[in-house]
Amino acid sequence: MTTATPHRALICKGCWQQLHVPVPLRGPWSMPFRMVGLRPSRMNPNTCTLCELMFTRVMRARNIALEATVLFADLRGFTAMSRESSSEEVSRLLDTFYDECAAAIWEHDGLLNKTIGDAVMAIFNFPIHQDDHAAQALHAARAIQQRYRALKAAAPRGSNQAARMEIGIGIDSGTVRFGEFGHAVRELTAIGTVVNTAARAQAAAAPGEILITRAARNRIGPLLDEPTPRTYALKGFSQPVELFAA
Amino acid sequence: MTTATPHRALICKGCWQQLHVPVPLRGPWSMPFRMVGLRPSRMNPNTCTLCELMFTRVMRARNIALEATVLFADLRGFTAMSRESSSEEVSRLLDTFYDECAAAIWEHDGLLNKTIGDAVMAIFNFPIHQDDHAAQALHAARAIQQRYRALKAAAPRGSNQAARMEIGIGIDSGTVRFGEFGHAVRELTAIGTVVNTAARAQAAAAPGEILITRAARNRIGPLLDEPTPRTYALKGFSQPVELFAA
Repeated sequence: MTTATPHRALICKGCWQQLHVPVPLRGPWSMPFRMVGLRPSRMNPNTCTLCELMFTRVMRARNIALEATVLFADLRGFTAMSRESSSEEVSRLLDTFYDECAAAIWEHDGLLNKTIGDAVMAIFNFPIHQDDHAAQALHAARAIQQRYRALKAAAPRGSNQAARMEIGIGIDSGTVRFGEFGHAVRELTAIGTVVNTAARAQAAAAPGEILITRAARNRIGPLLDEPTPRTYALKGFSQPVELFAA
Repeated sequence: MTTATPHRALICKGCWQQLHVPVPLRGPWSMPFRMVGLRPSRMNPNTCTLCELMFTRVMRARNIALEATVLFADLRGFTAMSRESSSEEVSRLLDTFYDECAAAIWEHDGLLNKTIGDAVMAIFNFPIHQDDHAAQALHAARAIQQRYRALKAAAPRGSNQAARMEIGIGIDSGTVRFGEFGHAVRELTAIGTVVNTAARAQAAAAPGEILITRAARNRIGPLLDEPTPRTYALKGFSQPVELFAA
């Protein structure tokens, strides 16, 4: 039932963009690179494992501050549904969710940074630089919703639990810090208000909806057909936050 | 400034408990095992990589339902503080947080499943079986708070941002599903109401506090000195939820 067919680059987009070096990711030319540990990154298969480490190892700084867009997506009603489903059905639903999100995010050069139960978190503008990272995140969000609408339309009526699933998505843009933290565990993690705001916007989104903050909306510009912002009281924010349905 | 000194088992606790096979994790006897890919798990260094895969590969089922305890801990005020701190200071604070949590969780045989920005999520009763998983989770939570109180007491007055940090912790027990999901990305993930409830309890906890649900409290029994439950309106729950400060 999956429609996930991620685009696969032949050379690492990050190394090409940053270093102007073609690092083969696939095909016979990739073999010697794979032998020294350079392979497609698990977080974005169009970049390589060197790109993952580039900023933390090569640039010396343990973490960097960068302008980026953060996207959170979650599968609504999944926890309730998982209680009444078989192990196979649960696996199939979550496999589909991760795979469809990954395909849409990678198509738009985002990094699938975290999967947390029935939610995923992606970052745009790292390690592949994107001037239009907010627009790319919105394209990815719309692609996720589009893929789920296609799944739903294709599912036999009443027979498919995935067809009842809806996705909620939240997007914010601004400064995030990104780096590898911890000694006993080492994890590539993004931190900052942007991460929290995107997560809260996702929680506020209705099923099937994409909510973006004013900061993200301002970066996207004329792409949107001027939706009216709605104000939300988000947990952890003293002032109401304006969000745009995009 | 870290006090993290995790206990290191010489043989894999999971393999010993489940298969009665001693799999050396450290020292010269571990060399041949490491050559075939058996090494300490990154999520719990007292178990091996085989244990991580045991349930998903050996038992055929893609995911399993099991009774478990889930613990969420987060670093309060970290996002705000990260805005006014240097890159080195941010790294140091988050390194310390991950490392202290990891040490406390592993000491009590838990699995550090996820790190998400300034929060961590741990599971108890997998892959190491624990009849007293709820009590072990509470011991780990108290150890985390104790470690932070020690850091705070040791910090020079006014000079250390870590000393101003407080941890909030939430714990719930019950049935969770645990497995590897996704094809394009494969992630070991826990799902179920228990995961959501533990996360909400953590969000409700005051700085320095541990909040546990009635389900967790009932499993622990006489360990607690009978705190009075307080009721909380948690997001996503139609009924108020009773939580115990433990």
